[in-house]
Amino acid sequence: MSTNTATAVLLWSCPDEKGLVSRLANFIYEHGGNILDLDEHVDRSAQTFFFRVAWDLDGFGIPLDGLDEAFRPLATEYGAQCSIRLNTQKRRLAIFVSKYGHCLQEILWRNELGEFDAEVALIISNHPDLGYLAERYHIPFHMLPVTKENRAEQEASQLALIDEARADTIILARYMQVLSPQFVARHPHRIVNIHHSFLPAFAGGNPYKQAHERGVKIVGATSHYVTDVLDEGPIIEQEIIRISHKDSLEDLIRKGRDLERLVLARGLRLHLQDRVLVHGRKTVVFD
Amino acid sequence: MSTNTATAVLLWSCPDEKGLVSRLANFIYEHGGNILDLDEHVDRSAQTFFFRVAWDLDGFGIPLDGLDEAFRPLATEYGAQCSIRLNTQKRRLAIFVSKYGHCLQEILWRNELGEFDAEVALIISNHPDLGYLAERYHIPFHMLPVTKENRAEQEASQLALIDEARADTIILARYMQVLSPQFVARHPHRIVNIHHSFLPAFAGGNPYKQAHERGVKIVGATSHYVTDVLDEGPIIEQEIIRISHKDSLEDLIRKGRDLERLVLARGLRLHLQDRVLVHGRKTVVFD
Amino acid sequence: MSTNTATAVLLWSCPDEKGLVSRLANFIYEHGGNILDLDEHVDRSAQTFFFRVAWDLDGFGIPLDGLDEAFRPLATEYGAQCSIRLNTQKRRLAIFVSKYGHCLQEILWRNELGEFDAEVALIISNHPDLGYLAERYHIPFHMLPVTKENRAEQEASQLALIDEARADTIILARYMQVLSPQFVARHPHRIVNIHHSFLPAFAGGNPYKQAHERGVKIVGATSHYVTDVLDEGPIIEQEIIRISHKDSLEDLIRKGRDLERLVLARGLRLHLQDRVLVHGRKTVVFD
Amino acid sequence: MSTNTATAVLLWSCPDEKGLVSRLANFIYEHGGNILDLDEHVDRSAQTFFFRVAWDLDGFGIPLDGLDEAFRPLATEYGAQCSIRLNTQKRRLAIFVSKYGHCLQEILWRNELGEFDAEVALIISNHPDLGYLAERYHIPFHMLPVTKENRAEQEASQLALIDEARADTIILARYMQVLSPQFVARHPHRIVNIHHSFLPAFAGGNPYKQAHERGVKIVGATSHYVTDVLDEGPIIEQEIIRISHKDSLEDLIRKGRDLERLVLARGLRLHLQDRVLVHGRKTVVFD
Repeated sequence: MSTNTATAVLLWSCPDEKGLVSRLANFIYEHGGNILDLDEHVDRSAQTFFFRVAWDLDGFGIPLDGLDEAFRPLATEYGAQCSIRLNTQKRRLAIFVSKYGHCLQEILWRNELGEFDAEVALIISNHPDLGYLAERYHIPFHMLPVTKENRAEQEASQLALIDEARADTIILARYMQVLSPQFVARHPHRIVNIHHSFLPAFAGGNPYKQAHERGVKIVGATSHYVTDVLDEGPIIEQEIIRISHKDSLEDLIRKGRDLERLVLARGLRLHLQDRVLVHGRKTVVFD
Repeated sequence: MSTNTATAVLLWSCPDEKGLVSRLANFIYEHGGNILDLDEHVDRSAQTFFFRVAWDLDGFGIPLDGLDEAFRPLATEYGAQCSIRLNTQKRRLAIFVSKYGHCLQEILWRNELGEFDAEVALIISNHPDLGYLAERYHIPFHMLPVTKENRAEQEASQLALIDEARADTIILARYMQVLSPQFVARHPHRIVNIHHSFLPAFAGGNPYKQAHERGVKIVGATSHYVTDVLDEGPIIEQEIIRISHKDSLEDLIRKGRDLERLVLARGLRLHLQDRVLVHGRKTVVFD
Repeated sequence: MSTNTATAVLLWSCPDEKGLVSRLANFIYEHGGNILDLDEHVDRSAQTFFFRVAWDLDGFGIPLDGLDEAFRPLATEYGAQCSIRLNTQKRRLAIFVSKYGHCLQEILWRNELGEFDAEVALIISNHPDLGYLAERYHIPFHMLPVTKENRAEQEASQLALIDEARADTIILARYMQVLSPQFVARHPHRIVNIHHSFLPAFAGGNPYKQAHERGVKIVGATSHYVTDVLDEGPIIEQEIIRISHKDSLEDLIRKGRDLERLVLARGLRLHLQDRVLVHGRKTVVFD
Repeated sequence: MSTNTATAVLLWSCPDEKGLVSRLANFIYEHGGNILDLDEHVDRSAQTFFFRVAWDLDGFGIPLDGLDEAFRPLATEYGAQCSIRLNTQKRRLAIFVSKYGHCLQEILWRNELGEFDAEVALIISNHPDLGYLAERYHIPFHMLPVTKENRAEQEASQLALIDEARADTIILARYMQVLSPQFVARHPHRIVNIHHSFLPAFAGGNPYKQAHERGVKIVGATSHYVTDVLDEGPIIEQEIIRISHKDSLEDLIRKGRDLERLVLARGLRLHLQDRVLVHGRKTVVFD
């Protein structure tokens, strides 16, 4: 899957129609592109066509700064939503945290290993606790305590920091604050959250406590895009682990950490590799 | 695990206290019983002691028809709930169905193989569709169509049939009717249901439709005891399967069948082997 | 995924080359075919292109009996192996069994539900034990006891029965005999076997006994195509289940039955829906 | 499960006999011990009794430095192997590594969170690469390059370092050297290794390469005690992950890292909590 040469990825969705794959594949082929990976999905009930194609830019006849423009007529013709990204444009991450460090640690560690091929641009927290991790990995750490009263101002500061750092992906790595609709609207489908339950079960606060009291035999974690409605955004990835009567609430929290780390990392990787298309409340994930 | 000789199983729960294991193990040992299997669990937050022990009756000094009586003083002393069952007393099953046959089929097939070591005493249905399966396995089939108007009478008939057949375990194998609190009260912790979702997610009707619309990446099934509150009874077993955007509602239903069959069979086996203790809304499962 | 109209499925593999997706999608589009489902995969190390496309035949400009011929020039040009099948041509199954009925039962039951959309043409066995299941589902049952001495003759009879019944898919549903290379050569990549271990672990005889003695914490099952070398054929599907020290050999056999049923059914479904391409010892599975 | 008071854990195995649970539970009860957790298992084919009991030392009538002695007569009477450990005696870990840091990182991180309740006494490596991780967590790092020629001397140095650091548990966290039988004999059932395959499949070198070439649909990882025979030691824990034809060898290595980290951490935790009893090539794991 890994290549050393420059590649482009097109994500495309539009009303379904005959000949779409043929038309899009031809367009790339005619300009000298070699298709490396192609996925398509038709949602019959929604009559919608979803498409992802990655191609080799070596010998491709359209200059890189003209790619968006080159695809625009096609997108207009089909009424498509589309985006193109080059693998040479490294994603820049803004990570929001509170007091629990395991998800932050996991992202920093995986990125150090090259799994995300991204740049961690900054860490924003409402608590000082995880400053030591930021230091360990030499990432700028901004402490912005949030209260009911100052939320609007602090969000303005957060957004300014994100802009300044040219971050394009926001990760809520167990950030214990709800973002305002205004904040979310500024970064549609660019904020990835980890919720420590198998949504829609145990939405809201204290999911492990809820799970423990209900006596479920399995707990889960969910990574999803943040939208206006709490814990209702499009789901990217979920995973579960078996538990039993032997597990105390503390055991659930401990076992859940492993899940949260894994599910956030998987969901984030899918997002960073442009493998997720959002359609209403749902996602199409080309993995 | 299987033995050819007669064995007894004691299920016991009481307020936690020092020396309980010692006392109970001694009692069996002193009467010449050889312990085959012993499980204990202490729920610290509820200060409750749960216990299961199976022992060999060969050479056991208490006559079988005096077992309950022999344990009564101990149970009174500790304020315990307890039950004793001999593996020679075959469980007798009453299976309730509607139109979907996969769960019924699974139970009949597994019982034919000896996995449950039970007798299917009768099948009760509100539809005629599955009569052919009852016939195939030579099980009495009772068709009792239920409407809002006649529910009380039909439940009376159902209870009479169950009594007459001396059935001690009731299985709702995708039975599409809600039982009345009166019915449930007659068979506390003896009615095992299969719900086709990962409870508490998607309780109520059409869970696969709900799951499909929410865009989850995993679906589940849950076997639980039936209580007064719909889909809120103590959970015995749960299992899940991964799905993706490719799966239509029909695919979810198809894949879900495999889950339902498995989860009902596992939950039922645990119940029939006296491995489940109920404590409030939760279960202790000694598997 | 299910449609009521006639559809065709093309399976294609050839040396990788630029423009293949474009060329094949165009060919179908130009003849008026509406692509329903398209999957491609390039194995970079093997420089090989794998392709599966399903399209709606409503309005397709090539007559159905001319499909193979129509694709032949393309296949020759690219040096491709390819096959085309219409969903109106029902697959015909020959099921081989010995004494264990669970896999046979599972296939018959699923097919009754329409999951395979196939016809069970005949059952062949070297033992009489499962005749009752064949009878239950009204399938011709042929008892051909195999010994070292008569294997060649019996295989000749088996092949004749398969031909006569026009069966195109052979399933070894816990058939306890090894087929000769001559038999296998007659049905390349058309014989699906279930092996009751997680291959390549515990190949050969008594895999549950081997697993029990080794003390593994997980057991598995594998469905694969049969080739000349025992248990070495290309793997279609695998699944596992956790076990513990509590599980006796009998427990492993019991738990394994669930796995075998599921893995054979899944593997068979993938094969029957033309979702499996074989490449050397490996498979590409477009699920 | 966690308690703040001092507790003792007894691990016990002996030939099976009537009255064992009763006798052992009584012994603890009579000396004023409150049993917190009790597990027993009888391996019928091996006629062996396995037992683990944890009890509260508050008010226990035997002085802590006399515990071993107090249980000795019982152990002699039953011909038992037994060990007792107090949770106040922190385990001391010696971690062996080569070049891959993910397993080391995982252990250090989990121990920082208190999951192991242990002390990492030292890290020994045959390469300098992971010195930076040791530094990050302030752990002594010893670089001892091993060659065919100097293995004996280097092992002597390693053993001396372990003794000096009073380490009681040795972890091979992707250490790419085989230990000599002499080394292993010095630390029986105290060396935990992680093998990056689902043993017994793909024992030996390059398991991911073997798995990729064989075309399996699932890969695994195994934590086990090290014995004289490579990759043949008693298995503590295993886990798997699904893969597909899309996964290159690099993908297997990447996905495998997640497995290795998890399986080593789980196996190590079970060992450190005295939940593993070894019996020949197998383990009894009371989790």
